[in-house]
Amino acid sequence: MTLLLTKEDVRDLIEMPAVIEAVEAAFRAYSSDEVDQPSYMGIHLSTEGAEIDFKAGYHRSGELVSLKASSGGFRDNLARFGLPNGMGTVLLFDGQSGALTCVMDGSLLTGFRTGAAGAVSVRALARPDARRLAAIGTGNQARMQIRAIREVMQIDAIHAWGRSHAGAEAFATEIEATFGIPVTVEASAELAVAQADVVVTTTRASGVALRAGCLRPGTHVVAIGADQPGKQELDPELFRDARIVVDAAVQCAEKGELQHALKAGIVDGAHAEIGEVLLGRKPGRESVEQITLFDSTGMAIQDNTTAAAILRRARERGIGQPFDFLTQDR
Amino acid sequence: MTLLLTKEDVRDLIEMPAVIEAVEAAFRAYSSDEVDQPSYMGIHLSTEGAEIDFKAGYHRSGELVSLKASSGGFRDNLARFGLPNGMGTVLLFDGQSGALTCVMDGSLLTGFRTGAAGAVSVRALARPDARRLAAIGTGNQARMQIRAIREVMQIDAIHAWGRSHAGAEAFATEIEATFGIPVTVEASAELAVAQADVVVTTTRASGVALRAGCLRPGTHVVAIGADQPGKQELDPELFRDARIVVDAAVQCAEKGELQHALKAGIVDGAHAEIGEVLLGRKPGRESVEQITLFDSTGMAIQDNTTAAAILRRARERGIGQPFDFLTQDR
Repeated sequence: MTLLLTKEDVRDLIEMPAVIEAVEAAFRAYSSDEVDQPSYMGIHLSTEGAEIDFKAGYHRSGELVSLKASSGGFRDNLARFGLPNGMGTVLLFDGQSGALTCVMDGSLLTGFRTGAAGAVSVRALARPDARRLAAIGTGNQARMQIRAIREVMQIDAIHAWGRSHAGAEAFATEIEATFGIPVTVEASAELAVAQADVVVTTTRASGVALRAGCLRPGTHVVAIGADQPGKQELDPELFRDARIVVDAAVQCAEKGELQHALKAGIVDGAHAEIGEVLLGRKPGRESVEQITLFDSTGMAIQDNTTAAAILRRARERGIGQPFDFLTQDR
Repeated sequence: MTLLLTKEDVRDLIEMPAVIEAVEAAFRAYSSDEVDQPSYMGIHLSTEGAEIDFKAGYHRSGELVSLKASSGGFRDNLARFGLPNGMGTVLLFDGQSGALTCVMDGSLLTGFRTGAAGAVSVRALARPDARRLAAIGTGNQARMQIRAIREVMQIDAIHAWGRSHAGAEAFATEIEATFGIPVTVEASAELAVAQADVVVTTTRASGVALRAGCLRPGTHVVAIGADQPGKQELDPELFRDARIVVDAAVQCAEKGELQHALKAGIVDGAHAEIGEVLLGRKPGRESVEQITLFDSTGMAIQDNTTAAAILRRARERGIGQPFDFLTQDR
């Protein structure tokens, strides 16, 4: 039997602390040769800017194969069809039989697992006494980062900057109301980070949103926005003296923030993958003064372990509709 | 709403004549720049020989994106889980919105669309007076080829050869009972093809199953078995004087029967893609004496148009269970 989970089911089942543990497990698995993630398939649709991507991941010890289909960029969806401009579907297959175990709506999963990645990096790399956060970019993923990071760090204050001042104000109002954390909207990214111990960049920009030279010693930077060739948020100079930790070395060199520091010849690679740090194979932060930088591009194995956690919880709580695609064969 | 179709639904809905038209449309679309098919993703599982593959295809004018997940090689499935050793799932997404339109069991689809490809090639390339067929290989796909080819050609007699004599006898009994076509089991592949106008090879061998020099002039060969690097059924010498038509030039050069003729330096490529022949852009058969050879490796766009035909028919007949993965958003 295949379990079907709607977006509403997933909303009920997905919980940030469990996703953080799932994503940490994903990073550990990736650095333990427990993972197979083939190159993703991407298709550009006739609608300008619209695409559908497929990412598959296999977690050997978890014995699950995941396939996530993500659509995005369908700007007229709401007006034309009453649908969001991007949706997602996740399939889980039993690694022992190849059977389709679960079909779940995947619209919420990517945001959660990306937020969780930031939190895992904060737990592993930020100073233990970090209390102040700068949010460069104030969209949905900025909200998700805070939702995740507050699970692993006591956030006393947030300094926010976004290209749209109105957007930043809305972000401030929402974060204060939701989490009771005071948010100050700053006039520049540099002013925001100058008051922070942890900096989260989520602008999805294609140019420098944050100049070098304004970070405080000991800051941890969570670089989320760059996940495609050409995308950029950080001045490559930021990499020069930082401890550079990535989710996946090959992927970050190609499409993460790291691509620009490599091209500029400032560094010749990352110091470690986050999984290696979590497993104790390589050092993370080496001093309280060191700037640490986590470059997150997103991996299929994060989808895999996150979806697996949702499926486990659905089974525990008896949520979802079982459906038998193979009736006649039983 | 997403329409869910079980294996039993698909069995009721799938009809060979419609699949033949769907596959012909797929070939035409592929040669009309109407198709995007990214390189497939394949994952090898811990179970030896077991794998799951994902193939995606976009049919621009059809405005559908398909994703087929195929598992195979789970040899202990029946004993351990009461499941077949390979299964399939097909997702269809609306190209205009990215919405998940359909989830259907895909176990039957690959066999049908592969059979249909053979039939399309026979209709396009075999002599109009062809009546006798040789089946080299007598497994499931051989049955499917006959099921398809008899829709486009009057088959008066079948000469069959398979590595297992018992398998060939079972094939003969079944084909005679199902289609009323007399089948003679031959002692060798060469004896079988010497009496045929159309030859279908489905052995999935990794060596020469059919030597050169034994085909009659004017024969059409449907080469199905080679769809991976290393797989081979035909003596590469068969290519020397044949009119070579492929489903996809790049793919056949890499993993079709053509790979071996290229490596041996016998030819430097195919003469045409089948879509180009169907569109009248390149000649197919050039004389009654010419040997024509169709190299079939299988394309995602065949899955796409076949699944689309199944979905259309399901809607016409009101079959399948609608399921709303996005309830809360409506």
